[in-house]
Amino acid sequence: VPDTESVHPPYVAVVGPSRPEGVAITDAAREAGRLLAEHGVVVVTGGLGGVMAAAAQGAEQVGGTTVALLPGTRREEASPGHAVVVPTGLGEMRNALVVRSADAVLALGGGWGTLSEIALAARAGVPVAAVGSWDLPEPAVVTCSTAAEAVAVLLERLGR
Amino acid sequence: VPDTESVHPPYVAVVGPSRPEGVAITDAAREAGRLLAEHGVVVVTGGLGGVMAAAAQGAEQVGGTTVALLPGTRREEASPGHAVVVPTGLGEMRNALVVRSADAVLALGGGWGTLSEIALAARAGVPVAAVGSWDLPEPAVVTCSTAAEAVAVLLERLGR
Amino acid sequence: VPDTESVHPPYVAVVGPSRPEGVAITDAAREAGRLLAEHGVVVVTGGLGGVMAAAAQGAEQVGGTTVALLPGTRREEASPGHAVVVPTGLGEMRNALVVRSADAVLALGGGWGTLSEIALAARAGVPVAAVGSWDLPEPAVVTCSTAAEAVAVLLERLGR
Amino acid sequence: VPDTESVHPPYVAVVGPSRPEGVAITDAAREAGRLLAEHGVVVVTGGLGGVMAAAAQGAEQVGGTTVALLPGTRREEASPGHAVVVPTGLGEMRNALVVRSADAVLALGGGWGTLSEIALAARAGVPVAAVGSWDLPEPAVVTCSTAAEAVAVLLERLGR
Repeated sequence: VPDTESVHPPYVAVVGPSRPEGVAITDAAREAGRLLAEHGVVVVTGGLGGVMAAAAQGAEQVGGTTVALLPGTRREEASPGHAVVVPTGLGEMRNALVVRSADAVLALGGGWGTLSEIALAARAGVPVAAVGSWDLPEPAVVTCSTAAEAVAVLLERLGR
Repeated sequence: VPDTESVHPPYVAVVGPSRPEGVAITDAAREAGRLLAEHGVVVVTGGLGGVMAAAAQGAEQVGGTTVALLPGTRREEASPGHAVVVPTGLGEMRNALVVRSADAVLALGGGWGTLSEIALAARAGVPVAAVGSWDLPEPAVVTCSTAAEAVAVLLERLGR
Repeated sequence: VPDTESVHPPYVAVVGPSRPEGVAITDAAREAGRLLAEHGVVVVTGGLGGVMAAAAQGAEQVGGTTVALLPGTRREEASPGHAVVVPTGLGEMRNALVVRSADAVLALGGGWGTLSEIALAARAGVPVAAVGSWDLPEPAVVTCSTAAEAVAVLLERLGR
Repeated sequence: VPDTESVHPPYVAVVGPSRPEGVAITDAAREAGRLLAEHGVVVVTGGLGGVMAAAAQGAEQVGGTTVALLPGTRREEASPGHAVVVPTGLGEMRNALVVRSADAVLALGGGWGTLSEIALAARAGVPVAAVGSWDLPEPAVVTCSTAAEAVAVLLERLGR
């Protein structure tokens, strides 16, 4: 778990399915990316589409820093909006890398991959806020109604 | 996801906390290890104590093959009962390796690490049976009452 | 091996020891970082000191993008000059990630870790130029006298 | 680096190309596997053909324990002779896992992948003996003429 009291900005992983159900989740991801970037947070994602793409684009539109940790080995797999792209070749094992690289996790939507990232974060003591996702016990996972609420919860946990 | 129609025996990962609550889970892990080994299944675990140790010991007592995929780098961290010990140095990222190395997953008890393994397995289409664990949707995760039931479910899914 | 004909800039890993022998290697690393950044290349390193720190600082001083892939789990382990820092927790296994994330490798100095990165790159068909490093067969590894020569070799191989 | 003073037998990784040049290297790998197994050593390989297959078969023929750490995700990719097969899905990153899982490394033949494993072992302080391989500095890498000599060197280093 990276220390956030440092010269580094906070890193928040925005995780969620590449094909979320409904536009609400995608909209929330874009909003989350934008708000995080506006607070100087580096946005990390798994680099693909859906929630990941929306979060990156939301952050990029306000000049934020975005990092994609791809499961595959080809940089071209990254969706637009990711400034730095690392093809890990780890497959789903990169979920653990996404979590490890983050000081907090914002989960949107309810895929199995998303659940694995929430669980790995909770296991490591990394704060998690979730919107439209799995029903899991607080305080490890704070269930929120909106992206704005989730961002506020995480910024508070990160001491910002 | 390894193919199970092969010269290789099936590999089943028995996953669960190193400090499970109550003896029932530990007893179930030992029973699961024993039953799996009696059916010629290789038992893979995360190599530490609690559920992992009990499953390995149950399998070992009937002459089964047991494999530990440790999070750390020291072979000595493995609990007794593991015949082959691989120190991965991956930390919690080894959870993904445990799942990847298995044809099916038997989850006992309800830790966050366990949840990450269930989720990664469900994501990859690896069959999961769970006893005393998280309440998750079937058919990806089949909730069972006993170790015997869980083993039967998985053997059936593996075509044994 | 990432494809370099894309919307992405080229990524070059600058690899070498955290405690290089003599200032010449450190100076060459700084020069390499600067030249790569001036050509729009993203500089990837293992994130620690010595060659890694010098390359990052050289790139940063001309406004380049620099990425640290740390072996440990703490972002604070990164040396200054790295804009984006990913703590991988992979230990020396992150050497393979450094190589995988790069379109070409520039090796400076002669540590064992550096040799592992050169070998992994050559294995994957990633171009390697080396200065003051191991004596290895061309064309997989092109031995150069200066950072400027090495950068020129790699830019040519990357079609820039 | 695993501690070898323990209840565990020593683990030696036999590394080398899947398509070695000449039968001498393959024969040496088979001999190495046999000798190691006769001394109670667990033989770890990268699980594929050539040197890896020959070492596993040599060990298996005398009842030894053999472990394959495959680069891919399909257990069927393992060559015969490997008793326990772990599909890692790590690609060439599994080279680091092969080294990490071993108390010593025996390298045969001269591929780039082999060189990466030798370098990673030397970096970690794991003893290496090499036959028909790269010309590297002693004592980190002990160059030997035969498999028997290499096995003797490593057993001595392992205190057997």
